Amino acid sequence: MGKVLMLEELTALVASVFERHGVSPENARIVAGVVAAAERDGSRSHGLFRLPGYVSTLKSGWIDGRAVPVVTDAAPGLVAVDAANGFAQPALAAGTPLLLKKVRVQGIAALAIRNSHHFGALWPDIESFADEGFIAMAFVNARSRVAPWGAKKKFLGTNPMAFACPRPGREPLVWDLASSVVAQGEVLLASTQGHALEDGIGLDSNGKPTTDPVKVLEGGAMLPFGGHKGAAIGFMVEIMSAALTGGRFGYEHRPDAPAGALTTNAGESVILIDPKPTGGDGVGERLTGLFEGLADVGAERLPGDARYARRRKSMAEGISIPQETYDTMLGFLR
Amino acid sequence: MGKVLMLEELTALVASVFERHGVSPENARIVAGVVAAAERDGSRSHGLFRLPGYVSTLKSGWIDGRAVPVVTDAAPGLVAVDAANGFAQPALAAGTPLLLKKVRVQGIAALAIRNSHHFGALWPDIESFADEGFIAMAFVNARSRVAPWGAKKKFLGTNPMAFACPRPGREPLVWDLASSVVAQGEVLLASTQGHALEDGIGLDSNGKPTTDPVKVLEGGAMLPFGGHKGAAIGFMVEIMSAALTGGRFGYEHRPDAPAGALTTNAGESVILIDPKPTGGDGVGERLTGLFEGLADVGAERLPGDARYARRRKSMAEGISIPQETYDTMLGFLR
Repeated sequence: MGKVLMLEELTALVASVFERHGVSPENARIVAGVVAAAERDGSRSHGLFRLPGYVSTLKSGWIDGRAVPVVTDAAPGLVAVDAANGFAQPALAAGTPLLLKKVRVQGIAALAIRNSHHFGALWPDIESFADEGFIAMAFVNARSRVAPWGAKKKFLGTNPMAFACPRPGREPLVWDLASSVVAQGEVLLASTQGHALEDGIGLDSNGKPTTDPVKVLEGGAMLPFGGHKGAAIGFMVEIMSAALTGGRFGYEHRPDAPAGALTTNAGESVILIDPKPTGGDGVGERLTGLFEGLADVGAERLPGDARYARRRKSMAEGISIPQETYDTMLGFLR
Repeated sequence: MGKVLMLEELTALVASVFERHGVSPENARIVAGVVAAAERDGSRSHGLFRLPGYVSTLKSGWIDGRAVPVVTDAAPGLVAVDAANGFAQPALAAGTPLLLKKVRVQGIAALAIRNSHHFGALWPDIESFADEGFIAMAFVNARSRVAPWGAKKKFLGTNPMAFACPRPGREPLVWDLASSVVAQGEVLLASTQGHALEDGIGLDSNGKPTTDPVKVLEGGAMLPFGGHKGAAIGFMVEIMSAALTGGRFGYEHRPDAPAGALTTNAGESVILIDPKPTGGDGVGERLTGLFEGLADVGAERLPGDARYARRRKSMAEGISIPQETYDTMLGFLR
């Protein structure tokens, strides 16, 4: 059983759920697009699975679904956006025309969003920039959950970073990684299902290693991937998302956040670079050679390729949605 | 036994070794400064330990010690430097005045070096930029040694990345990490000493996991840190160092490189961002709060802090050099 919807149908349905819970039509369309794109690409952890979290956060009053982002021309190479306590994606969309105008003139430009909530996957924020020929990086911080550099308590968020570069003749290569060993969702899932975590994922409230997900969640902490190296990446994300933007650091998460509020009021930044002025007009051919070389040595699991395969299937055959998920979505419209 | 030299003495001595082997006085001063700084900070793997490698590479004729970098104003936010088959650090120094001028006007700027050889630590390239209040990133690629994303053969270099941000009232926080599990030097050392590697560091020539360092070095490959996440970082470094700059990709390393040539003719890029236009004038106070918070949760091993501690000692008491190392250095002057 289940439903099969085309992308446009699914986007419209998710947008109507957002509108039903106080999101303006413009913002609803943008955020629903991100949720539907994740579902289309089989990245289910960031697709419809998140809808209950979006709804509970909106119901709690923690986030302003009708926020109108304020775009500022901060410097010849910098765009600042105040998301006005709304979702990050409408803030990014609002700043994108100026960001693109700047990168085309300057060769490099960045956009810094503050006072925003990011609850989606990060790759959708930059894939289109690489489609237009730019190298792109994105950084988003979140409330503290990770203990870095020998810390005994949580301090950084699971802080993801994404990177995209053009791949001539194909979809761009886009990666998107959390700076923790695993996503927080995996710890939550283990806690719900009552199974133990692998070693090296978390600490208890005394700062001792534990495999008990409940101890990690209740006053404990998650660990960065790759030890001090992942901590370094997570710290960079914190600086790029909060210090650069004027957004909240993860440890500044407000303790008075209402029940049901799952998002973090934090920040996001995006850097775009045009590779042609310094890399030369032949940069496209050189990238083609690089990707051919990767295939030649047997690198078969390039980031994003599984997403693109599922996307092609979804665009041809529609997006298959389990009945229970579909019913939950309809329930949110009542 | 051994010698104790002040930083200036050591720098002058190393510079004279470089000059003795065909490096111009200007270039010798810059590269010697990087070697001496590493030795001063106790980062011995990138200090005098590297001098024999520098000398053998210069003797082989692979690198042009007298190269005069050519700086181009590539775009309002971009500086291109052709290192002219010389060391990367003189190319960075040549482009730095224009890079700083640009970031002060544009808010963000990047410098892209091609046709360069980087054989030193990466943190010295950006520490001073963070001292001046900028957020800085640097990327350097190298000849292929690492098998990414399920590849059975080497393809990426151990590609390091560095990041720096201001820390008000103290030295900046600067990290510098290879995207492989361990540095290639550790594999070489294990091979020389005849001991096994830990699991998860390397593959043999058939693409099978091995703990034998000889098998890793002879037709095998090293692995990225943190699995696919480190591979993602190493790939980003490759794009930023070679595609963006027009420098050689690691897999394009010339097979006709002469014996004794230890460096890679590749590329480097540096991004600088002024956090004030988007982060606000209060960004310094906010960074102070962030670093206080890190201390509060017990993060005691911040990157670079051991370096700064050794630096203070070296600046007060001089740099202690083992007699054998000193004698080797003098030998290079004959």
